[in-house]
Amino acid sequence: MPAWLRGYNRRLAAADGLAALIVSLLLVPQSLAYAMLAGLPAVHGLYASILPLLAYALFGSSPSLAVGPVAVLSLMTAASLGPLFAAGSAEYANAALLLALLSGLLLLGMALLRLGFLANFLSHPVISGFISGSALLICLGQLPALLGFSAGGGTLPAQVQALFRQWPDSHLATLALGLASLFWLWWARRSLAGLLRRLGLADHWADNLARTAPLLAVLVSSAVVAFAQLDQAGVRVLGPLPVGLPSLALPHADGSLLRQLLPAALLLALVGFVESVSVGQTLAARQRQRIRVERELLGLGAANLAAACSGGLPVTGGFARSVVNQQAGARTPMAGVFSAVLIALCALYCTPWLYYLPQAVLAATILVAVWGLIDLRALQRTWRYSIQDGLAQGATLLGVLLLGVEAGILLGVALSLLLFLWRTSRPHLAVVGQLPGSEHFRNVQRFAVVQSETVLSLRVDESLYFPNARYLEERIAGLVAERPAVRHLVLMCSGVNLIDASALESLQAIAERLRAAGVCLHLSEVKGPVMDRLQRSQLLEQLGGQVFVSHFQALQCLDPQSVARAAHSAAKPHGE
Amino acid sequence: MPAWLRGYNRRLAAADGLAALIVSLLLVPQSLAYAMLAGLPAVHGLYASILPLLAYALFGSSPSLAVGPVAVLSLMTAASLGPLFAAGSAEYANAALLLALLSGLLLLGMALLRLGFLANFLSHPVISGFISGSALLICLGQLPALLGFSAGGGTLPAQVQALFRQWPDSHLATLALGLASLFWLWWARRSLAGLLRRLGLADHWADNLARTAPLLAVLVSSAVVAFAQLDQAGVRVLGPLPVGLPSLALPHADGSLLRQLLPAALLLALVGFVESVSVGQTLAARQRQRIRVERELLGLGAANLAAACSGGLPVTGGFARSVVNQQAGARTPMAGVFSAVLIALCALYCTPWLYYLPQAVLAATILVAVWGLIDLRALQRTWRYSIQDGLAQGATLLGVLLLGVEAGILLGVALSLLLFLWRTSRPHLAVVGQLPGSEHFRNVQRFAVVQSETVLSLRVDESLYFPNARYLEERIAGLVAERPAVRHLVLMCSGVNLIDASALESLQAIAERLRAAGVCLHLSEVKGPVMDRLQRSQLLEQLGGQVFVSHFQALQCLDPQSVARAAHSAAKPHGE
Repeated sequence: MPAWLRGYNRRLAAADGLAALIVSLLLVPQSLAYAMLAGLPAVHGLYASILPLLAYALFGSSPSLAVGPVAVLSLMTAASLGPLFAAGSAEYANAALLLALLSGLLLLGMALLRLGFLANFLSHPVISGFISGSALLICLGQLPALLGFSAGGGTLPAQVQALFRQWPDSHLATLALGLASLFWLWWARRSLAGLLRRLGLADHWADNLARTAPLLAVLVSSAVVAFAQLDQAGVRVLGPLPVGLPSLALPHADGSLLRQLLPAALLLALVGFVESVSVGQTLAARQRQRIRVERELLGLGAANLAAACSGGLPVTGGFARSVVNQQAGARTPMAGVFSAVLIALCALYCTPWLYYLPQAVLAATILVAVWGLIDLRALQRTWRYSIQDGLAQGATLLGVLLLGVEAGILLGVALSLLLFLWRTSRPHLAVVGQLPGSEHFRNVQRFAVVQSETVLSLRVDESLYFPNARYLEERIAGLVAERPAVRHLVLMCSGVNLIDASALESLQAIAERLRAAGVCLHLSEVKGPVMDRLQRSQLLEQLGGQVFVSHFQALQCLDPQSVARAAHSAAKPHGE
Repeated sequence: MPAWLRGYNRRLAAADGLAALIVSLLLVPQSLAYAMLAGLPAVHGLYASILPLLAYALFGSSPSLAVGPVAVLSLMTAASLGPLFAAGSAEYANAALLLALLSGLLLLGMALLRLGFLANFLSHPVISGFISGSALLICLGQLPALLGFSAGGGTLPAQVQALFRQWPDSHLATLALGLASLFWLWWARRSLAGLLRRLGLADHWADNLARTAPLLAVLVSSAVVAFAQLDQAGVRVLGPLPVGLPSLALPHADGSLLRQLLPAALLLALVGFVESVSVGQTLAARQRQRIRVERELLGLGAANLAAACSGGLPVTGGFARSVVNQQAGARTPMAGVFSAVLIALCALYCTPWLYYLPQAVLAATILVAVWGLIDLRALQRTWRYSIQDGLAQGATLLGVLLLGVEAGILLGVALSLLLFLWRTSRPHLAVVGQLPGSEHFRNVQRFAVVQSETVLSLRVDESLYFPNARYLEERIAGLVAERPAVRHLVLMCSGVNLIDASALESLQAIAERLRAAGVCLHLSEVKGPVMDRLQRSQLLEQLGGQVFVSHFQALQCLDPQSVARAAHSAAKPHGE
């Protein structure tokens, strides 16, 4: 039994119940809309908001995260299944369930193997570019539904082309309904709560009531369509939805399809996880709580498995609905359980009422919900802060728009790894000399120091590992080639926290090559943990030179005259 | 005109000429063998040893590097073309030229765009595992030729299966010839130079003469086959080779084939570049010279373009032949030009003599040359030094053996990136307190320090960037959740060399979440370049808190009582 369930009482239940009601009223139209965005029958969205909520309540760690279908995952689902099956077909729906199944299994696997760090591949600029690009594609994809012709989807050029080709087919009644609800939702978002407050409602109630604006749009527009029989005049409506709860069944799987879907499922799992964790952390911090990443992986994995077994679609924690959940007063995961029950009741009894719901109104719901995710000024901010990160963000954004969501995110990840390798492949190396009158060694380019002629002192300001191992070989070869008198090279390792196997081999190669050139390699100021490792290798035997505790000691041993000179040149200003 | 050509004189020419002669005698049988290993007619190997050598002499930077076909690239060529075309067909040969063309262009592109750092993706463990695995596959692949049946190729299981199926077809005369030359080459490698020295030859001449052992095997075995008419008894011979120089032509290209070959060409370019640079650096260091990476890329790119235009195959610098070149006295790139002329003469006049050369003898040449590359104990050494690097090396080795060369190297690269991310995703964070009686702050777990109750001091011992940005959010959330009395958090940034855009957003999120929890975030001891960047962002405005020059100053400002306590608790041991 979860800890929060032990102290559960009527007061908590009342708070959770109210939050669940508000979230459900928001979730019903969103679920329907996001299922259609994913290319699925709308009822999949309802099903994805029942069992997954229960599963997350049992296994997740955030008390206020609200899971369910979200726009970005629906777009990714559509983008990965669109090329394989006809939207609306039984194969398509089955493949969507397989995607949820696979990404659920991947999330569970990441939880068990503690692979949450994989999400670090998705840097902030990549995620930001991805979300903005996806949101743009989603918004553009709603225009056909608003205008009354069949939805397009696909990349930016494909969508623009389709719009140009199809706009003469626009349907005026549909457009009127769509624009009216768009305006209503827009206005409600900005001003409804304020108006209700001015009408005398308490702040709390005004906010909660304002959030049911999408439901009101749904009810009013359905009533208008039903009353004026606009569906027979060509306004596309949701049509008949099945009544009742989803039947439990595993999706049909065959090996080759699973292999085909695996990369998309991995991206879905990672993007869903990153989004959910960032929502969860934001919510938890407000109450000085914290979420546990492994538990989040478990919760999201279970939620996706539940979605796969009950006719849903891939799910994750949604930002807007989680904030609503918390602000409406959710105190424990029981709020999620209550939401699930309310949506199950809706699937049991309310689906006939949704028959007349115009698709254009759902498109307006998506537009208003997703528009805020488009943040092109973030690109400008990132670019100003760091050109490399800006490049990664811009490439992801453009990649999503022009090549598609999967190609875009992969491009971004590849580019950020490349830029990272580039950035770290040239660590700071400084030739150092002795500060007169001290035992300190500083950069010869910044300080008036005494350099030995036969001993080259080199300070490495970075851990030595594979991105910079070869640079070290190159630089040292260059420095020694420039100094024919040098007989000893001392690497000052005070800034080296790690020497990996690549750098170890580079050091061995350097030692060997230096020996062939008549130069002996030594190390100084090697940190304890690094030394422990080196002792397990053969470097210390092959080094030829010694390992000195301090760099001063190294110079004392290898070139006492230069040390004496440094002492002397310090004495001068005082003594003479 | 290259610099080395200006002072060129007869003495240098004599030295280069002798080295060229020795290298050519070694290169002729190796070229033939490696072309066949790549699935190509043997004469491609000769062609790949003429113009590419001239091209490298013109554009490369190493005076003693000897380019030409090498075993590993030939194996990679065979592995990438085998699934596409029938070995020996005209399409196959054309595709091999396209591979050389593409990898030449990629190398030139890397030279112009200064993308040499891309080779850093191939860490030492990955390269080592790749070379050992490839060498094992190559050696195993020679057994069919030694035993007298048609060569297999492919992964380890496929080769073992083919050997089991075909061994009853073994041909005794072929086996006898193969084993005899194997034994001769083996013995010559170990003992011939010593024997010649004991017979009175000067060291230099004994070494050089011993290196012509493969040529002697070729001549003697060809003579035996011709004399005993063994080719009619079933010993496979090289057969008729075309006479004359290669004709110059670009390979036929079509878009879809180019796209198919591009990934393989990229791997060929990277592996060839890494191998060549490591050979070049080893050679250069012996003479206190250095090679320039951009020039190497240029030289190798030009060599591969030349190979593609003159009926060759992908080429790079070979280790054994470059060492021979240097030890035989090569002083300038002119040695490469002389080698090219000698091999052109061989193509013009000597190919008829190669008719009777038994394929089993070429197989023996490959076996002896490649056997030394198998270094399974390197895996053990790496494993003992670092389990993570050992894993990457082992996975690459097994991947090459079981999945093929391309899959193996990609597996290794992916795994080393993963392990790297894992390793850096959890940087060292220490809660610090004030050392009594000083202005220093140290880790509370290691020192008896004074901690403030309302100010949490946190030292970050690593640059903040995308692999660890989320960990920072998580850890800070956890630390603050544990300490309800905390009102200020000061991040001590003395060890932070970089804050990338991911970490910047994490810091913004942290500041915002802390503010929601009633905690103010401050920074201290931010380095100059990091501060310059932060000033271009909005963090400093959004921070809420201040940026302190020293951590001591931060505590003085935020919790003077705790500073006083630290001073007092220091005074005790002395005063009381």
